[in-house]
Amino acid sequence: MSEVLESYALGSWFTPTDEGEPLADANTGETVARLSQNGPDVSAMVEYARGVGGPAIRALTFHQRANLLKALAQHLMGHKDEFYALSYRTGATKRDSAVDIDGGFGTLFSFSSKGRRELPNSTVILDGPLERLSREGTFVGQHVYTSRPGVAVQINAFNFPVWGMLEKLAPAFIAGLPSIVKPAAQTAYLTEAVVRRIIESEILPEGSLQLLVAGHRGLLDDLGAQDIVGFTGSAATGAILRNHPNVVSGGARLNVEADSLNCSILGPDVTVEDPEFDLYVKQVVTEMTVKAGQKCTAIRRVIVPETMADAVIEAITGRLAKVVVGAADHPETRMGALVSLAQRDEVRKAVKALRTSGELVYGDPEHVEVVGADAESGAFMSPILLRAEPGAREPHEVEAFGPVSTVITYGSVSEAIELAARGRGSLVGSLVTNDADVAREVVLGVAPWHGRVLVLNRDDAKESTGHGSPLPVLVHGGPGRAGGGEEMGGVRGVKHHMQRTAVQASPDMLTAITGHWTTGSRRNTDDVHPFRKNLAELRIGDTIESAERVVTRADIDHFAEFTGDTFYAHTDEEAAAANPLFGGIVAHGYLVMSLAAGLFVDPAPGPVLANFGVDHLRFLTPVKEDAVIKVTLTAKQITPRTNAEYGEVRWDAVVTDQDGEAVATYDVLTLVAKGDERA
Amino acid sequence: MSEVLESYALGSWFTPTDEGEPLADANTGETVARLSQNGPDVSAMVEYARGVGGPAIRALTFHQRANLLKALAQHLMGHKDEFYALSYRTGATKRDSAVDIDGGFGTLFSFSSKGRRELPNSTVILDGPLERLSREGTFVGQHVYTSRPGVAVQINAFNFPVWGMLEKLAPAFIAGLPSIVKPAAQTAYLTEAVVRRIIESEILPEGSLQLLVAGHRGLLDDLGAQDIVGFTGSAATGAILRNHPNVVSGGARLNVEADSLNCSILGPDVTVEDPEFDLYVKQVVTEMTVKAGQKCTAIRRVIVPETMADAVIEAITGRLAKVVVGAADHPETRMGALVSLAQRDEVRKAVKALRTSGELVYGDPEHVEVVGADAESGAFMSPILLRAEPGAREPHEVEAFGPVSTVITYGSVSEAIELAARGRGSLVGSLVTNDADVAREVVLGVAPWHGRVLVLNRDDAKESTGHGSPLPVLVHGGPGRAGGGEEMGGVRGVKHHMQRTAVQASPDMLTAITGHWTTGSRRNTDDVHPFRKNLAELRIGDTIESAERVVTRADIDHFAEFTGDTFYAHTDEEAAAANPLFGGIVAHGYLVMSLAAGLFVDPAPGPVLANFGVDHLRFLTPVKEDAVIKVTLTAKQITPRTNAEYGEVRWDAVVTDQDGEAVATYDVLTLVAKGDERA
Repeated sequence: MSEVLESYALGSWFTPTDEGEPLADANTGETVARLSQNGPDVSAMVEYARGVGGPAIRALTFHQRANLLKALAQHLMGHKDEFYALSYRTGATKRDSAVDIDGGFGTLFSFSSKGRRELPNSTVILDGPLERLSREGTFVGQHVYTSRPGVAVQINAFNFPVWGMLEKLAPAFIAGLPSIVKPAAQTAYLTEAVVRRIIESEILPEGSLQLLVAGHRGLLDDLGAQDIVGFTGSAATGAILRNHPNVVSGGARLNVEADSLNCSILGPDVTVEDPEFDLYVKQVVTEMTVKAGQKCTAIRRVIVPETMADAVIEAITGRLAKVVVGAADHPETRMGALVSLAQRDEVRKAVKALRTSGELVYGDPEHVEVVGADAESGAFMSPILLRAEPGAREPHEVEAFGPVSTVITYGSVSEAIELAARGRGSLVGSLVTNDADVAREVVLGVAPWHGRVLVLNRDDAKESTGHGSPLPVLVHGGPGRAGGGEEMGGVRGVKHHMQRTAVQASPDMLTAITGHWTTGSRRNTDDVHPFRKNLAELRIGDTIESAERVVTRADIDHFAEFTGDTFYAHTDEEAAAANPLFGGIVAHGYLVMSLAAGLFVDPAPGPVLANFGVDHLRFLTPVKEDAVIKVTLTAKQITPRTNAEYGEVRWDAVVTDQDGEAVATYDVLTLVAKGDERA
Repeated sequence: MSEVLESYALGSWFTPTDEGEPLADANTGETVARLSQNGPDVSAMVEYARGVGGPAIRALTFHQRANLLKALAQHLMGHKDEFYALSYRTGATKRDSAVDIDGGFGTLFSFSSKGRRELPNSTVILDGPLERLSREGTFVGQHVYTSRPGVAVQINAFNFPVWGMLEKLAPAFIAGLPSIVKPAAQTAYLTEAVVRRIIESEILPEGSLQLLVAGHRGLLDDLGAQDIVGFTGSAATGAILRNHPNVVSGGARLNVEADSLNCSILGPDVTVEDPEFDLYVKQVVTEMTVKAGQKCTAIRRVIVPETMADAVIEAITGRLAKVVVGAADHPETRMGALVSLAQRDEVRKAVKALRTSGELVYGDPEHVEVVGADAESGAFMSPILLRAEPGAREPHEVEAFGPVSTVITYGSVSEAIELAARGRGSLVGSLVTNDADVAREVVLGVAPWHGRVLVLNRDDAKESTGHGSPLPVLVHGGPGRAGGGEEMGGVRGVKHHMQRTAVQASPDMLTAITGHWTTGSRRNTDDVHPFRKNLAELRIGDTIESAERVVTRADIDHFAEFTGDTFYAHTDEEAAAANPLFGGIVAHGYLVMSLAAGLFVDPAPGPVLANFGVDHLRFLTPVKEDAVIKVTLTAKQITPRTNAEYGEVRWDAVVTDQDGEAVATYDVLTLVAKGDERA
């Protein structure tokens, strides 16, 4: 971090010519750094990302990109102390900082892992099965995701200067897109520090990541149909971005995550004696106080049965009274400062609006006792709990982006669902109940209004990650007021950054385009058994056409006896004849599959190490006694592992009978060595 | 169809109080019907859809909804003659009308079929696998799609008055959303006629479909976070809708399909002798003349190698010269009229703009000879072919929505890709080549700019559905200029209308919420073998825990000999010991699976009719000799078929060894009778 924050653009650090405005320590008001509105040429940054960063990323496979993210996370872990020290200055306590910093690194690890486990080791993702578009099968369709030759622009909120950047960077990078990061002013010094460590590590290809610490004016002016803007912040700013001509008419994609009026519902089944009561109260207090309530996912609306309101309020206020407010790095502090005095003014204004239809039941918006800091210089504020009047409008419309929640009461379950919907779309809602019927009714009722719904009870509480925590493997976003966007969600987040296209072609052409063998395309049956080829030698389309084998009645009888699978369709002539699907004795599906393996296997040690699974097995035609079966096995997909001496090969298997009818189709999954020798 | 077109709103037909403006027959200029701007109360229509139509649809399962669409398509087929007669009056020839009318019915059939085959017979769709969010597995995540309690508003283009409505109605209906249809004025009489037949059939629940024939002013004014607007039309109107406050800030989803400057590329490998040359030329002429070029997917840009331009132009003009223009129902007519004189004026204006950087090589925009009609009264126009000057801007920016294409030349393949991208996003592009390398380079290069890409060659030409035909099983839409939307694509189109939500809960709660058994949740092991229960008796979670079986070395030896699967890991001690994954003789995976079936099967005839498949089989731990295995089988998903006496049951299977380790996991798929007796 420099005194005047620098941008990273076009491969070097840009120093503003003026000294900019001070950014204050949230605890003390001291200047942490200075931020200038004077930044590098944004058009040139966009062009550099597209011309240098993008091609460099897209030259790598998904697995290679995923490996770099893991290396990056490991590198950043080594600088945690530095980041924590800066994080304290934003008002974030140690717990708050862990959410941002460790949470950010965890997101990199998660995307790295998902990328390697759930994506092919190539540059194209297939979406869904092959669509047969014609009778003869010469014309087929396949949806694919490809990388866009654009740039991912991030416009982030102040509250998670590390996680906010990394949770957008990770999926964009795996998707093949370079990023330009625009952090929020208040905490830009922490983002800048992390970007410095990323750049100096040289782990990501140059041009993958640029940083703009300056105003975001003009940031969208050069964007077009291949670019994506990821925005986290207020609904009002989201609306301004949505009106940008390049979004309205230029085709730039805009993904908005806006603050929302998230609710938590206490189920009608819960009494004060139930463990769920304590879980509910604790969760509300946690969400009010973590990050001093400056979280898009915090609980703003505490929706409880009328009859439980007093008890809930009493329990929450009892716990709030024990929350020590103070300097972020003070050992006694439970809740830190807001990010700035200006932010505190905003929250006080919102509390005022909420009080027009609500009674203050805990806290004083104008005063709080603090430890380890001066209450006047720092942006401290007491937690505030309100109780809404019946029918109050404000709690469903006014967001106080601080440690503020409002208790709202309901009569029936359907009323609780309606109240939840009055938030007009939220990032997350939660329900605390131990009644499965209540869970089903409420969750299905509120799901259309939410990107994420958490059900908390005695069974999952111990391991629950909590109402307020978006997880990298789950989508983060929500309809309506929450912005209508989706981020993360594992490979879903990667796909959000790519273009889905339906490709129509002949099977051979489709195989050439996707690098994935397509049903109906050419099979290569040269003299070498494909099980004798290592990963370097094996090609998509390499095929074994097996010899034939007669399935005798004796085989069926024997298999029934040997395995114990004496199902009547294999053993009882009369009963089998009455079966509407078989009309007579049939071979066991597992017998057919086992015999097929006997037909395609190559017994001697070689590159094929193991058959580790089977997918999509369907028994299509009954195999009667004396049927003659054979199997055709074709290499369909080859996935070398980046960190092992072997990889996965997916084989297309078709077992046919003497009439050429397919009796079973499936994918055989094997591990195959990369090199010559086995292992 | 009435003389003054009527809207269908709130369960009855609305007759305007004024007589409206005339809609002219495209061939003759005669008045076909009249259209008033005076329509029913749009707010009331939205409320009726949400309050009456939506709940009625959502009371049905996906399969029930799909069945209704099939019945609807069958019903409408009975009225084809009526629809064709009206379609001719729009200028559509018989071939054009088939695309609209039969294509529309085909879309209903396709969605009906996909809905029954690819969706559960319930009201919630699971998205992706279970996400394990905790070490002990007490806290898990599952993405689900739920129906939104909103309305789907269609704003359609004039060119496909039947298909345009049905391709939006079908996925919305299966998704659980009622529709309000706003047809384009010019051809609203055909849409109105089809809606009359739909309403009188009483096949769809009342409130599922309302029709607004009037201006669309105010149509978005009551929409919110649960509503979706599907718009097909010009990019300019798309931009206006995108600026509506309920889209910008109100959370209404807007899906735009806009006209785009689609291209077709002739590969550099193709010579005039190749069959691909003729395929290319024919395709261009077809796309220019079908619907008189009034298709969002028509080829506007004919991108060919420099060296081939003269030959291509000669061949195209030769074919265009044979295109007979005339009255839609005249037997000699190959190309009909444009929809209106006003539309012809628009196209002439666009041709003028294109001529600033292009030479006219075929046709006269001001004159054409016609058969069966008066060239002056009808909206007839000649096909127009232009040849662009090198570097011309207009062909990439100006859309002539009529029988107009421009030939553009390229040098290298990368230049061809750049030219395609200059359209800034298209619904569809095509490539005609017989070279697999060209196909791979071009398709992957242009895919990010396209919603659909077609590769045409000698192998698929016979069965190809053509450049201009969106298919119900493939996504229809495109990035950038094409609107950035996605429609259809089979169940993708259904999901577009729903809300995706990540649900976090304990396994038991998740099972209760989704109706799908979740790993880790309760298993019911009562005394009755679950294979003895029919579909009405069987419950999610019903489980058999099998007896144990020792897998002896003799079993392994015997299985190898019996099946012929003598892979060394099962037969050769020394070689097996050297295998890095096994370290000794292991049982065949197929043996384990076969023995497991012997352990869980219930032999006597009963409600289980067949095991028709297996999914997601993974061998997790090697089974060595003398291992003791058993299997636990739990009913995971129950899918009664709506049109058969049985349904599918998906069973969760876990084979464990003497240490309690899972050695194999998979899903067993069975057919189970609904009633007491076997089938």
